[in-house]
Amino acid sequence: MDPTELQTRVETLEAALAMATKVNAEAFYWWCTALMVAIHAGFLAYEMGASRAKNALASGIKNLIAFAFLVPAFYFVGWWIYLSFPTGFTPGEAGSDGLPWAPAMGPNLADNASGIFWAAFTLFAATTASIMSGSVIERIRISGFTILALVLGAGVWILGASWGWHPDGWLTTSWGLHDVGAAGCVHTVAGFFTLGVLINLGPRIGRFNPDGSLNHIAGHNMPMSLIGLMLIVMGFFGFLGGCIIYTGDTWLSIYNTPATLSAFAFNTLMGVAGGMIGCYVMTRDPFWMMSGALVGVISSAPALDIYYPPLAFLISFLGGCVIPKLNDVLVTRFKIDDAVGAVAVHGFGGVWGLVAAGIFASGYPNVAGPAVSFLGQVQSMLVFVVLGFVPGYALSLVLKMAGLLRADRASEIAGLDLAEVPIKAYPAEDTMPAFATEAASPAE
Amino acid sequence: MDPTELQTRVETLEAALAMATKVNAEAFYWWCTALMVAIHAGFLAYEMGASRAKNALASGIKNLIAFAFLVPAFYFVGWWIYLSFPTGFTPGEAGSDGLPWAPAMGPNLADNASGIFWAAFTLFAATTASIMSGSVIERIRISGFTILALVLGAGVWILGASWGWHPDGWLTTSWGLHDVGAAGCVHTVAGFFTLGVLINLGPRIGRFNPDGSLNHIAGHNMPMSLIGLMLIVMGFFGFLGGCIIYTGDTWLSIYNTPATLSAFAFNTLMGVAGGMIGCYVMTRDPFWMMSGALVGVISSAPALDIYYPPLAFLISFLGGCVIPKLNDVLVTRFKIDDAVGAVAVHGFGGVWGLVAAGIFASGYPNVAGPAVSFLGQVQSMLVFVVLGFVPGYALSLVLKMAGLLRADRASEIAGLDLAEVPIKAYPAEDTMPAFATEAASPAE
Amino acid sequence: MDPTELQTRVETLEAALAMATKVNAEAFYWWCTALMVAIHAGFLAYEMGASRAKNALASGIKNLIAFAFLVPAFYFVGWWIYLSFPTGFTPGEAGSDGLPWAPAMGPNLADNASGIFWAAFTLFAATTASIMSGSVIERIRISGFTILALVLGAGVWILGASWGWHPDGWLTTSWGLHDVGAAGCVHTVAGFFTLGVLINLGPRIGRFNPDGSLNHIAGHNMPMSLIGLMLIVMGFFGFLGGCIIYTGDTWLSIYNTPATLSAFAFNTLMGVAGGMIGCYVMTRDPFWMMSGALVGVISSAPALDIYYPPLAFLISFLGGCVIPKLNDVLVTRFKIDDAVGAVAVHGFGGVWGLVAAGIFASGYPNVAGPAVSFLGQVQSMLVFVVLGFVPGYALSLVLKMAGLLRADRASEIAGLDLAEVPIKAYPAEDTMPAFATEAASPAE
Repeated sequence: MDPTELQTRVETLEAALAMATKVNAEAFYWWCTALMVAIHAGFLAYEMGASRAKNALASGIKNLIAFAFLVPAFYFVGWWIYLSFPTGFTPGEAGSDGLPWAPAMGPNLADNASGIFWAAFTLFAATTASIMSGSVIERIRISGFTILALVLGAGVWILGASWGWHPDGWLTTSWGLHDVGAAGCVHTVAGFFTLGVLINLGPRIGRFNPDGSLNHIAGHNMPMSLIGLMLIVMGFFGFLGGCIIYTGDTWLSIYNTPATLSAFAFNTLMGVAGGMIGCYVMTRDPFWMMSGALVGVISSAPALDIYYPPLAFLISFLGGCVIPKLNDVLVTRFKIDDAVGAVAVHGFGGVWGLVAAGIFASGYPNVAGPAVSFLGQVQSMLVFVVLGFVPGYALSLVLKMAGLLRADRASEIAGLDLAEVPIKAYPAEDTMPAFATEAASPAE
Repeated sequence: MDPTELQTRVETLEAALAMATKVNAEAFYWWCTALMVAIHAGFLAYEMGASRAKNALASGIKNLIAFAFLVPAFYFVGWWIYLSFPTGFTPGEAGSDGLPWAPAMGPNLADNASGIFWAAFTLFAATTASIMSGSVIERIRISGFTILALVLGAGVWILGASWGWHPDGWLTTSWGLHDVGAAGCVHTVAGFFTLGVLINLGPRIGRFNPDGSLNHIAGHNMPMSLIGLMLIVMGFFGFLGGCIIYTGDTWLSIYNTPATLSAFAFNTLMGVAGGMIGCYVMTRDPFWMMSGALVGVISSAPALDIYYPPLAFLISFLGGCVIPKLNDVLVTRFKIDDAVGAVAVHGFGGVWGLVAAGIFASGYPNVAGPAVSFLGQVQSMLVFVVLGFVPGYALSLVLKMAGLLRADRASEIAGLDLAEVPIKAYPAEDTMPAFATEAASPAE
Repeated sequence: MDPTELQTRVETLEAALAMATKVNAEAFYWWCTALMVAIHAGFLAYEMGASRAKNALASGIKNLIAFAFLVPAFYFVGWWIYLSFPTGFTPGEAGSDGLPWAPAMGPNLADNASGIFWAAFTLFAATTASIMSGSVIERIRISGFTILALVLGAGVWILGASWGWHPDGWLTTSWGLHDVGAAGCVHTVAGFFTLGVLINLGPRIGRFNPDGSLNHIAGHNMPMSLIGLMLIVMGFFGFLGGCIIYTGDTWLSIYNTPATLSAFAFNTLMGVAGGMIGCYVMTRDPFWMMSGALVGVISSAPALDIYYPPLAFLISFLGGCVIPKLNDVLVTRFKIDDAVGAVAVHGFGGVWGLVAAGIFASGYPNVAGPAVSFLGQVQSMLVFVVLGFVPGYALSLVLKMAGLLRADRASEIAGLDLAEVPIKAYPAEDTMPAFATEAASPAE
């Protein structure tokens, strides 16, 4: 072969390998996106099961709304926010690639990345909105919920992602934030946003007695909730897969630090197990045990790439031990009626995860910013807390004043399905004696 | 390094990259196949939930049959049909690769493609058969259903696929059909086949009163149906992934036009969301909202590769707005008792998707045939309608005459589970008061 | 380009392709791991549905334990066993890579394999433990179960895997064992371990009458069980994908023989279908039909790589025909109360699969050992039977003597949920008349 032909063949090979890498990255995030739909199937089962039968479909429809309405909202607004605001509140030039008329936002044969990244982020957004939806079941109005979900999912969290889960985000470039698994922008923000909403929304009728004592309001179908939570765990492989950048060469974290999917695998499983065992030890309750799987994922998420696996287990185990107790404090002391414990699981779990990385990953170098530090992690955590809480509280206050936040008393007692859903979860003719005895509920 | 060695190493690299591409394609379609099993888990949940409790297992067993029996049938017949009939009714030579004794149909170490493509197509076939199974629940005989499922899944639709979802299919080479997401051969064919069956099968006892007025027959477990439908949405990432050809270089549509998985991701999500929102706006019904997810996927499917995402949203939104109304027309005016609305969702949804591509993708060039055109899309759509309807109607008529189509009146009133299934969905000793009140059903 | 530059570019390409292969392998096993979580969601649904309502959560919590506790146990012990014992009972040097302080057991940027392989194996381990969990429901103590699950999942089966599902395992190097799909170390071992436990555990109260005649004890929610089993089928694509080695060039079986994922796809589907149809023909029972899907996967598993697909169908069909009858023999003749038939499905199914490969794959060459032979398969099968049965029997006998094996009579009659779980599956206020009629159960 003459040298020129050889050179041509080498160049062809280089181009082919580069293209193969793009295509394989597309395939990887395609599956991430698909598995995150399992998170939605899971949330749907989990939250319907955690509702009383009279509210099951009204709970479920919120999950469907959190998915359906977020997609166009994230297309028109969310992705632009992510690209625009890494430096704070001033939109940068990169945002123009996220505008609906940008070449990147269409079926562009020369762009094998934008669509698939947008899709994965959109599922992140829908997940974030679904975190809130469980807490507010059984008394929120669908209209108010839809507005809250849109603002949280297409606005608030993605601003947080731009700040702290982006290679140029200011939390990283200024304070060295390390949060590869999105514990801050997704879980902390969603948890504290939810807390803000719950303060204005108030507890379900019957949750607290006039003397301040507590009634347990049990969901109608715990097996369905457990299955749903296990589907969420499966889906978290899509979520966490979506947290690592496929380059074909080494994997990179969102901060461009080198990583391996192998490390993610070690620490995801050890984290899930640690959280489950922690909650099991403290409660013996299978609902909390599966919530502990989420606590575990969240607790270890910020440094999935660098933890020694038994350390991830321990951090998540501690989270699993403490979070159920913190949820008790929220309920008994602060009278916050969080129907599924999402504030504690996601909000406090995210806080713990971020702080733990400040303790155990301190000193790890970043590419665009100072090394990981305890102070940087704590400061960043506080930013996420405020970023979530303030709009959640403020917007729900406005909705409350507008009468869009809470269902009326009669609807709530009769069951929201009757008021807001044209079909029945379990039709009377099939199940009358079983599921129609709501009036006897001690919670009312 | 001397030039000969360098040349050898370049040749080795070329072979290695070619092989890596084959292997990565195999892995990609393996996951497509796996996720399409989620479609079956989903259909199972969806259709059992949409049945009254007395028919739940008889409905579910049909989904199991549609899966199990289709696999060998598609091995022995279906794949051969696909390869044989792109030109119409005359078998071509390529069919020989699909014969059971062909080297391609075994564990051939030199063939990393045939088995995995066959597997993905087999799951398409089972999906097609499952589309019918929901509509005919609560009165069809298992024997008759099995025959119908085999003919639809291993015969009718795959002939349609050979004609219109194949690089050399005559609908494309002659009329320029563009239907990358298989809205025609899968959804339109299955929907109209089902319509043909429903005409001969007749409505469930109690669905219509003697004066022609209508009774609603509610399924016994809507939460289960909703979860099932969300699993189907997840599975559609397997289905639509199976609609794009992995070459390692650019992706190709089934018509060998270039495409990206990124565009598929944009339009799949925007289509799902559009269909859901359209149905929600028109009905507020979560069952229809999730059916709208299917309407959305189907409406945008034909041009997933080239739509501008907001256009996919709009097309699917329109589909979502209209399809529930068309289902009402079918039921109230034509007295077609479609238990889950599959004729409207899949049949009419497919028609709308094909026509919409004729409007919005007109002029897009094909590789082996004229450009996409409104007329070509409409003609192709009519072919799919006829191809589905005629055998569905004719075969069900024969089965009706043979007494194999419909369960007897007593079995239907008592519940098909009692007549056709040796176990109970919800055993009496556990649930007697809840699910045994069938006699009181207003539908009978 | 001068020759030196060309050479550099070729070397760069070689390194890049090698790295891309590592990364793609990581991605492949990441999805295997994720889909195996679906096996757990499936087992959870399947086993809760197969329990009476009063035991639903006590059954489910065992699945959660089998998952959560196995993860750290497999990190600290299981993986070391696998690497250490291919030659029998003497630990080899390779085991040092599995020690918790080995560089391979952490987030090592130079190791893109260990973490992800460990993760896939960990899910195999949890699956193995879950096989047992269904059989022992409704009377085992959670404490005893946890110990049994840990020993089976982090000890017994993985020793079997080291012996017979490892390139250097002595069953292969000495006897030519071929069992690519892990029918021996996973299914046979788990099935016979379970048999040993069941002998000591004894039947549920009410299962047998004083005269030796049999009462059927039906699970409370068959639709949930069927959906769960279909999720397990989906998850088996993760399991079987985890049985093939991704090299980027040709795929290898665990024995380093060449294979294709295409052959796996052919035979997985044909096996599933054969098993389902076999069980359906013999029983017409949808629960057994879906158990037949597992029978089918297991029957064909040992030679998924080399069977002619219709042969896989036949082998699995035969398995499907026979296994339900063998389960009847176990119950009626030997009074073994296996609540879900796991001994027959997994234990006897594994035996049949191993023997069938001795008949139909005899003579197929191995890389490190003699060719596949009938005798070699039978001997290896016997090893797996003994390896499973002896510790299962012995350990459960010890637990029985220690009073940790079986719940007390009053708890069993009242329902284990009341005794062992702090929450209720279906709270009384919602479902009282439906699920609280346990006392009327003919099984007590």
